[in-house]
Amino acid sequence: MKSYRKELWFHLKGRRAFLNVTPEVEEALAESGIREGLALVNAMHITASVFINDDESGLHQDYEEWLETLAPHAPTARYRHNQTGEDNADAHLKRQVMGREVVVAVTNGRLDFGPWEQIFYGEFDGGRRKRVLVKIIGE
Amino acid sequence: MKSYRKELWFHLKGRRAFLNVTPEVEEALAESGIREGLALVNAMHITASVFINDDESGLHQDYEEWLETLAPHAPTARYRHNQTGEDNADAHLKRQVMGREVVVAVTNGRLDFGPWEQIFYGEFDGGRRKRVLVKIIGE
Amino acid sequence: MKSYRKELWFHLKGRRAFLNVTPEVEEALAESGIREGLALVNAMHITASVFINDDESGLHQDYEEWLETLAPHAPTARYRHNQTGEDNADAHLKRQVMGREVVVAVTNGRLDFGPWEQIFYGEFDGGRRKRVLVKIIGE
Repeated sequence: MKSYRKELWFHLKGRRAFLNVTPEVEEALAESGIREGLALVNAMHITASVFINDDESGLHQDYEEWLETLAPHAPTARYRHNQTGEDNADAHLKRQVMGREVVVAVTNGRLDFGPWEQIFYGEFDGGRRKRVLVKIIGE
Repeated sequence: MKSYRKELWFHLKGRRAFLNVTPEVEEALAESGIREGLALVNAMHITASVFINDDESGLHQDYEEWLETLAPHAPTARYRHNQTGEDNADAHLKRQVMGREVVVAVTNGRLDFGPWEQIFYGEFDGGRRKRVLVKIIGE
Repeated sequence: MKSYRKELWFHLKGRRAFLNVTPEVEEALAESGIREGLALVNAMHITASVFINDDESGLHQDYEEWLETLAPHAPTARYRHNQTGEDNADAHLKRQVMGREVVVAVTNGRLDFGPWEQIFYGEFDGGRRKRVLVKIIGE
């Protein structure tokens, strides 16, 4: 069994954004030399997500508005977590809806995807450098 | 390390439905010959889910109504994604709540489940043929 | 390829609670002797979650209140599932938001975590003994 590990670093300027990281994950898979196995891609921060969906900007705006409805950023005083001096409680909630990680099959050296699947980094508390972990195991 | 791959195809008539796919996944596991490892089961479409919960029709109705409350299908014009000509933006949102995939332990050649765990395909934009991927790695 | 399996048992008195199980998972990893691979940690019950987030009590209260807003426990008659004699339909819904499982990379014999990642068991229908499965594969 082979294993391969890579960190992807991002610095998104705004508070919230979605970034297609599929090319970086494909590059990591090529570097790994693994042909059959599983690839784990996870946010290393608890106010961010990794998820699979469509690379369509209208949908991303829909996600943004929908998540703000489910877990609004303001007023920040509505969240007990923000009494610690943070203002990012909503980001911890949003990340639970969108998820921490994806596990993707690796087949014939490729990410084994359906027709529209793309991997996104979802940032909910940006403005600083943050990381995604890619861990691939297989043969 | 062994690996095994199988696609499960479904064509659900209505827009939304839940289908118990545990027998098909168990069959795939038996075909794989893998005794110890991990099984990934994921929707290959971004308007569908694979999740684990109870095979109880009342609960499935509760999910249906709850998801419609969280992310209503209509009016379709409320979603920017639907300006692309689609009417399935709500399906992309519902799928995030229910999840894309499950990873199940394989122990002694069986899906290593608690007492009530069953695997479901959740369709949120049906009426056409769609797929679930089963990828199993182990020995 | 090595594989390792362990059940963690909990008996939380109240209906809902969050419990940090990172030390138990780390202990299981040490017992496994696995240095590189993947660790699956999943609730074996369908009214409970395993998720990764922050060990901060204010945030846990925020989760508790937020989940009650998204999927209230009462009135229990609002859910069809509760016509089966159960009163835990809300727990099946809350568990979907928080997730069934996490998959964590294992690197150099350690859980490969970002700075604040901790693994929690989320109980939404407590008052009885319930289980979490840890399955680790690798070398």
